[in-house]
Amino acid sequence: MPDRRTAVEALRRLTVDVPDWPEAGVTFKDVTPVLADHAAFSAVITALAAAGRDDHGTVVVDKVVGMEARGFILAAPVALALGVGFVPIRKAGKLPRETHAVAYSLEYGEATLEVHRDAIAPGERVLLVDDVLATGGTVAATRELVEACGGTAVGVAVLMELGFLDPRSVTGDLPVESLLTL
Amino acid sequence: MPDRRTAVEALRRLTVDVPDWPEAGVTFKDVTPVLADHAAFSAVITALAAAGRDDHGTVVVDKVVGMEARGFILAAPVALALGVGFVPIRKAGKLPRETHAVAYSLEYGEATLEVHRDAIAPGERVLLVDDVLATGGTVAATRELVEACGGTAVGVAVLMELGFLDPRSVTGDLPVESLLTL
Repeated sequence: MPDRRTAVEALRRLTVDVPDWPEAGVTFKDVTPVLADHAAFSAVITALAAAGRDDHGTVVVDKVVGMEARGFILAAPVALALGVGFVPIRKAGKLPRETHAVAYSLEYGEATLEVHRDAIAPGERVLLVDDVLATGGTVAATRELVEACGGTAVGVAVLMELGFLDPRSVTGDLPVESLLTL
Repeated sequence: MPDRRTAVEALRRLTVDVPDWPEAGVTFKDVTPVLADHAAFSAVITALAAAGRDDHGTVVVDKVVGMEARGFILAAPVALALGVGFVPIRKAGKLPRETHAVAYSLEYGEATLEVHRDAIAPGERVLLVDDVLATGGTVAATRELVEACGGTAVGVAVLMELGFLDPRSVTGDLPVESLLTL
């Protein structure tokens, strides 16, 4: 798939390694230069959106969810590209109406994520989109939220997977599309 | 413009008023149902993107900036629609490389916003995109950040403007495109 190859090449070329951030010994992958380059941003959205289609190109998801905050930047365009609705997964206390909530541990601390109870209808198939798959905790919590609404998480699409953190031991049987694995 | 009319109608129909949130006496405008409806979301993105074009439809901006977090959901698709790069404006401590920072007061408290110093090149024309224009403080701070990079803020596009808070006394001469004024 030339789109995917273009996206992967752009990610490799434009992502900036930031040493010792947010803490000593961690190297942060800064993808903001990818977003600032239209051709690169457009290519990664097309490549991520492929996770919401079957082998014939037919869209097989009803909603795309994005995790606050960087996930929003990718998930909203992926939802638009697939022709389906976008649902934000937010940190505690940010959504104004009735929510489901899940507490979980993440790479650098703890957090609670929430979704509006009426954001996903029972039976809907949902694609999860985020920038980086690290410990897998955010994805596992989001899957729980989708299921609490009665939906089914059918896959997760990310720019990068930190394979050395073994996220798939946490995300389990959920299909993962990661453009780069580190 | 039929696109704009479709967008405004969708906003009116789908936005949910949440009384006494985030505090007593405030009615929050929840636009998440607009995002969850593909046709509505797509129409509002097209309408917001028009603020980055001249009367002939030519794109007249070099970058689109979005303010964390809800602004990301709109600004990233607007940047893709215009064929230009996206730049995130983030809360303090979230961007990993060298930043410009501006402290400001907002509708419910105080905050600091940051931008990566190299995210906008000197001379670039920048469109600001957010969900709601309330006091105007976020927009004014973002404009300062754009100018600190050497860029020029050429306009702001929002779904809704809370006219009763008089934001334009704060945003000054910056052209504002708001799909709805309350």
